[in-house]
Amino acid sequence: MRFKKIAIIGVGLIGGSVGLAVKKRRLARQVTGVFRHLTTMRRALRRKAVDAGFMDMAGGVKDADLIIIGSPVFSIPRLAADAAKHAKRGAIITDVGSTKAYIVDKMERSLKNSKAVFIGSHPMAGSEKAGVEAARADLFESSPCIVTRTARSDLKALAAVAAFWKSVGARVKILTPSEHDRAVALVSHLPHIVAFSLAGSVPAGALEFAAEGFKDTTRVASSDPDLWSDIFLTNRKEILMSAGLFRKYYNGILSAISKGDRRRTVRELKKAGLNRAIFLKQAHANKKN
Amino acid sequence: MRFKKIAIIGVGLIGGSVGLAVKKRRLARQVTGVFRHLTTMRRALRRKAVDAGFMDMAGGVKDADLIIIGSPVFSIPRLAADAAKHAKRGAIITDVGSTKAYIVDKMERSLKNSKAVFIGSHPMAGSEKAGVEAARADLFESSPCIVTRTARSDLKALAAVAAFWKSVGARVKILTPSEHDRAVALVSHLPHIVAFSLAGSVPAGALEFAAEGFKDTTRVASSDPDLWSDIFLTNRKEILMSAGLFRKYYNGILSAISKGDRRRTVRELKKAGLNRAIFLKQAHANKKN
Repeated sequence: MRFKKIAIIGVGLIGGSVGLAVKKRRLARQVTGVFRHLTTMRRALRRKAVDAGFMDMAGGVKDADLIIIGSPVFSIPRLAADAAKHAKRGAIITDVGSTKAYIVDKMERSLKNSKAVFIGSHPMAGSEKAGVEAARADLFESSPCIVTRTARSDLKALAAVAAFWKSVGARVKILTPSEHDRAVALVSHLPHIVAFSLAGSVPAGALEFAAEGFKDTTRVASSDPDLWSDIFLTNRKEILMSAGLFRKYYNGILSAISKGDRRRTVRELKKAGLNRAIFLKQAHANKKN
Repeated sequence: MRFKKIAIIGVGLIGGSVGLAVKKRRLARQVTGVFRHLTTMRRALRRKAVDAGFMDMAGGVKDADLIIIGSPVFSIPRLAADAAKHAKRGAIITDVGSTKAYIVDKMERSLKNSKAVFIGSHPMAGSEKAGVEAARADLFESSPCIVTRTARSDLKALAAVAAFWKSVGARVKILTPSEHDRAVALVSHLPHIVAFSLAGSVPAGALEFAAEGFKDTTRVASSDPDLWSDIFLTNRKEILMSAGLFRKYYNGILSAISKGDRRRTVRELKKAGLNRAIFLKQAHANKKN
C-alpha cells in the first residue's frame, strides 16, 4: 500500500475514477470522499468509488496522506485551501483541473505557511459525460497526465504525485504550469471550442442529414458548459493564441477552395492528415508500452 | 429479386458496401464490378463484394438494370456517360457522389438522348478509411441517403432508386440537387474542413499530450485528401456559406472568452450542446425505426 488514506474532494467522473482505480489497484488502505450534497454522496457510495463519505471537510481529510481535489477549476483553490486547514502535517494536496497556472499560482500563495503542500495535476482523460456513474477504474490507463513543477515545488511531494498517477496507469509528464496551459490549449481546449462552434453553427433543420462525421467531430460539444466555460476563462491567453493557429489553417483551406486551387487544397488536407497520422502513431505506441 | 443485374463502377468502400449489401439481402441475381486496375478487381473478388469483375465497361454493364457509379466526384460524369453508351434501353444509372448539382447538371445534359436515365444519389455513410477492405454489408443501415429530383427526372427511375437505397437499410430523402448541396455543406463538408483545419493547426510537438477529444474531433481529417478536395471544389458556393456560419459562432465564443464574459460563454456552449442533443435524439429515433 502506497498510502494509508486518500481523500477525494468532489467525486464525479474524474474523482470517482480515481477512487475506483485506487481501490482496484489497492493503492491505499482507505479512500474517503468529501461531498456537498447527500445525493452525490449516495451515488458515489452506491458506485463503490469511495469507502466512506463525509459531508464535512475536516472529517473527510483527517489523517489523509494524499488529498485529491476533483471539482471544477474555479472551486479548486478554495477547496484545496480548506482541505489544507484540516490536513495533517506533510499531507500532499493535488487536483485534476484542466488549467494549471491559475490554480497553482493561487495555491502557492495561499499555502505558503501551511503544513500541507500542493502539487498541480491534470490527468488528461475524461468523457463528455459527467457524474460518478460514468467513472471507470481504467480511465487513466495509457492517457497522458501532466504534473506541474515550479521553482517553489516540494520535490518529494512532486515525485509522490507523479508516482501516484503512474500507479493508476497514466503516462506522466512534468511541465511548468504555463507549458501545461499552452499544450492543453492546443490539444484539448481548442478542439472543444471548435466542436462547440461546429455543433452550434449548423441550423437545426439540417441536422436530420447529419451522420457519423458530424457526430464524432462534435462529440465533445456535449460536455458540461459550466465546467468548460471555467476552463476556457482560466486559460484565456493560450486559448486565443491556439485559436489564431486554427483560424489561419481554416482560412487557408477555404481560400484554396474558393479560388478553385485543387493543388493547394490537396496540400493543406494532406498536411493535416499527416499531422493526425503522427498523433495516431504516438497514441498507438503509448498503448503498447 | 428486385433487379436482374446490378453493375458497380468503382468498387471501393462505398461501391464495395453496395455490393455486399445487395448480395446479403439478395436484391439482384448478379452483381458485377467494373475496374480500372487488376489489383483492385482481385481485392473486390477476394472480399466477395461482386460476383464477377470486368476491366471493360461494355462487359460489366451489359444487360444491367441498375448501374451504380462508386468513383470519386470528378470522374462520375465521364464514367456515367461511358456506362450509358453500353447500357441496355431503360437502364437506370445512379451514383454515390458527395455533391449533386455538379454531377446531376452534367448528366442531364450528356444523357439527353440516351437510352439510359440518370438519378443522383448520395448515401451518407462512410468512414475515414478507403478501399474495399473497409466495405461492410451494413454500412447504409439507418444512415441518411439523399436521392435528387429535378424537373427533368424520370419519376419511375427516381422511385426505383429510392426503393433500392431503402432496401439496403438507408433512410431515403428526396431533395433537389441544390437543397442537397446546401444540407451536406453544413453537416458533412463543414465538419470535414473543421477537422482538417484542427488537425493541421496543432504543432507536432504538442501532439504527445493529445487525447480522446483531439482524436474524435479530428477523426475525419484522416480521410482521403484527393477525394475530399474534389468534393469541396464541386460544392464551393455552399461550403463558403456554411463556413461563414461556423466562423461567426467560433468568433462569438472566442470574443466572450477574451472578454472574460462567463455568462455569454456558458450561453454559447449551451446552445451548441442543445443543438447536438437534437441531433442525437433524431439519430437515436432513426436507429429504432
